[in-house]
Amino acid sequence: MAAATFSATLVAPSILNSHSETNTASSSFHKPKISVFAKPKSICFRSSGPRICRVFNANKFVRTEVNSRAAGVIRANAAQVAEEARPSAQKEMEVVDVDLGDRSYPIYIGSSLLDRPDLLQSHVKGRRVLVVTNTTVGPLYLDRVVAALTHGGSNISVESVILPDGEKYKEMGTLMKVFDKAIETRMDRRCTFIALGGGVIGDMCGFAAASFLRGVNFIQIPTTLMSQVDSSVGGKTGINHPLGKNLIGAFFQPQCVLVDTDTLSTLPDRELASGIAEVIKYGLIRDAAFFEWQEKNMQALLTRDPSALAYAIKRSCENKAEVVSLDEKESGLRATLNLGHTFGHAIENGIGYGGWLHGEAVAAGTVMAADMSYRLGWIDDTLPKRIVKLLKQAKLPIAPPEEMTVDKFKSIMAVDKKVADGLLRLILLKGPLGNCVFTGDYDRKTLDDTLRAFCHS
Amino acid sequence: MAAATFSATLVAPSILNSHSETNTASSSFHKPKISVFAKPKSICFRSSGPRICRVFNANKFVRTEVNSRAAGVIRANAAQVAEEARPSAQKEMEVVDVDLGDRSYPIYIGSSLLDRPDLLQSHVKGRRVLVVTNTTVGPLYLDRVVAALTHGGSNISVESVILPDGEKYKEMGTLMKVFDKAIETRMDRRCTFIALGGGVIGDMCGFAAASFLRGVNFIQIPTTLMSQVDSSVGGKTGINHPLGKNLIGAFFQPQCVLVDTDTLSTLPDRELASGIAEVIKYGLIRDAAFFEWQEKNMQALLTRDPSALAYAIKRSCENKAEVVSLDEKESGLRATLNLGHTFGHAIENGIGYGGWLHGEAVAAGTVMAADMSYRLGWIDDTLPKRIVKLLKQAKLPIAPPEEMTVDKFKSIMAVDKKVADGLLRLILLKGPLGNCVFTGDYDRKTLDDTLRAFCHS
Repeated sequence: MAAATFSATLVAPSILNSHSETNTASSSFHKPKISVFAKPKSICFRSSGPRICRVFNANKFVRTEVNSRAAGVIRANAAQVAEEARPSAQKEMEVVDVDLGDRSYPIYIGSSLLDRPDLLQSHVKGRRVLVVTNTTVGPLYLDRVVAALTHGGSNISVESVILPDGEKYKEMGTLMKVFDKAIETRMDRRCTFIALGGGVIGDMCGFAAASFLRGVNFIQIPTTLMSQVDSSVGGKTGINHPLGKNLIGAFFQPQCVLVDTDTLSTLPDRELASGIAEVIKYGLIRDAAFFEWQEKNMQALLTRDPSALAYAIKRSCENKAEVVSLDEKESGLRATLNLGHTFGHAIENGIGYGGWLHGEAVAAGTVMAADMSYRLGWIDDTLPKRIVKLLKQAKLPIAPPEEMTVDKFKSIMAVDKKVADGLLRLILLKGPLGNCVFTGDYDRKTLDDTLRAFCHS
Repeated sequence: MAAATFSATLVAPSILNSHSETNTASSSFHKPKISVFAKPKSICFRSSGPRICRVFNANKFVRTEVNSRAAGVIRANAAQVAEEARPSAQKEMEVVDVDLGDRSYPIYIGSSLLDRPDLLQSHVKGRRVLVVTNTTVGPLYLDRVVAALTHGGSNISVESVILPDGEKYKEMGTLMKVFDKAIETRMDRRCTFIALGGGVIGDMCGFAAASFLRGVNFIQIPTTLMSQVDSSVGGKTGINHPLGKNLIGAFFQPQCVLVDTDTLSTLPDRELASGIAEVIKYGLIRDAAFFEWQEKNMQALLTRDPSALAYAIKRSCENKAEVVSLDEKESGLRATLNLGHTFGHAIENGIGYGGWLHGEAVAAGTVMAADMSYRLGWIDDTLPKRIVKLLKQAKLPIAPPEEMTVDKFKSIMAVDKKVADGLLRLILLKGPLGNCVFTGDYDRKTLDDTLRAFCHS
């Protein structure tokens, strides 16, 4: 029954020029019936982007396959896509796939997904689950997650550990609490860890899952916009060190990411804006149409229009999934997702973790990266202005806090993960909107000029 | 020049029915000249085991390829091998390869390898090295490792961190000292960590390398027999938790393992015996001929006969390399390397880490596993007797310490990593010498009987 319930919601997005691999599927695919999945083994879509195939076996959804394109910029007509994003009540869920061979996994995006026992249960391995959450998100959603996991006599037993909330707790002492709980409750190699919360919870739970018994399964349930559009996708996990952010961690991919867009209803405005900083990033580095869509739809995002949010999340996940598929371990391309982050991490570290939200620091960092790109002559003067305008509209910072000095920036950036053989590499914008470079080949003086322009001392 | 020096020592073991892929190599291979490697691209050997090919490119050794056989028992005539193990002074180094696709790496085994700058330098990536060692091994060998790394104006800069010595320091607080040092000395993604020491240093340095900046290169230089025959090979890294051994860690493979057999000259007798416990294990689980060789040559091992030790290390590494190649992440076969370890880990944990050496606890655990196997009717009565005799000869324990009670064993074994869905799986001997099973399908009462037979309460 679970498989049937599951299949019924996999309705074709009308935005996709859907077709199937078999005639059976072709004729029945648009009908919102369970029987639609009775026969086809592979159902494929193609938008302007990659060809996406959903593979079934004996009526049960097995996996989605995405035929990767060469590295490039997604140029779909984003505005049009957004208008058509929710054509009917049938359209409950989007699925974006992260294509990593035998470590591929789906990102489910939709409303009320926490009430879908089939989704969660189908990705739990073993019978034991440890939910890792925090004092803010736990009281709001933990019961619903437990109910979904245990629904229908699933035989899954659930334990939970509730951590203090905040970036300053993303450290070894708090991580040890997860291990303590896992061992006390006798989690074994066949257990599943579930991260229920924002980026801090996702990063810590993911690293705990990567390290506990040298690796157990895990699932991400991101509940902030920041984590839904960015940190829950792609397998970067870890904790901070007193001397730098995310310096200890692992690449470790989840079984699935479940984005219930309803959880954004409880998100504070400042957290929402923080997530929008990462949404803006995708447009700048590789998706000009998405950036232009944001310029037109920022107000809808800020007023939490469901369609606009759902589209922004999906488009962000598609961009991230494609980059991660092409460069999982960040040998090059993936680093471009860190536009503004080297400056941003320095701000977060320099003023103490938790002083600014991650997206706030990234916003200021993005303005600094754009400034430096312009000083290098790599972009024209309109782009920094458009960036500042959009960030201001989102009520995000466009400069670092006063306490950040040039020396502070320099000393912290010197231990950035993107330093290689002593050389700091940066993501900078270059060329028309939607293009960037990851490079250590820039004039050091220009970096100094940018730092001096944004710092009082 | 470095490549030439390197090649000159790769002389064919006379035990192998060597042949080459090219006529050029065939005619010149047995001549101990550098020019022997001038032309062939691939030189292959075949013993009774896998076909081994050493691949060269432009005179430079690139990698060794081992054609894996199906899972099975190595049945080479081990005694004969030992006699012929050091046919000439030319035979300076053995190379055993761990075949893991793009994560394959060589294990170099030989005398004076710490004085071979070419070996170490060829596996360092980037220009920055952090050597992790301890207060016992550091004073003995750190200078030589630094000299080898910096020899010939290599442009490699070396930092080191010296940790306290002992299993009780294999924990999070000590691990953090490695991260502290790495960050303070500005190690970046292109740096290399080198573990110089025994199993504790190897496990901690390996986990630090796996987690620092989400993974940097590392090299193992094991200096105890235990780490040379077992823990340095196969990529298991990690630390202990107060509630259990090796509960936090990662699978992370080194760039190479460098075994300088001369380091055994400074090893205390008790440590030597501890390593022998793991050597005996390989014979029991998959290599009957090796066990029989040990029965004949135990005295030579205990008196540190160089040929006997070199052979025992090589044969152990070959066994481990083959198992790891077939099952890197321990989905089944690899678990058999843990014969006696579930009982042994319980002893180590129960009396406090460092009370007994790892191999001592494994020795007692092996006797217990053999006892249980016999009680189950899976082996005849001669095998437990032969095991006890050999362990006694090696001056290893054949029973747990008095303070280990039945309840203590049970409560600690309940959180063993091999518990799955609440069921404790054990490695037990079954069938003729050299055969074992990894199973949760055994009579619980028999486990109780064994525990009661070995515990006073």
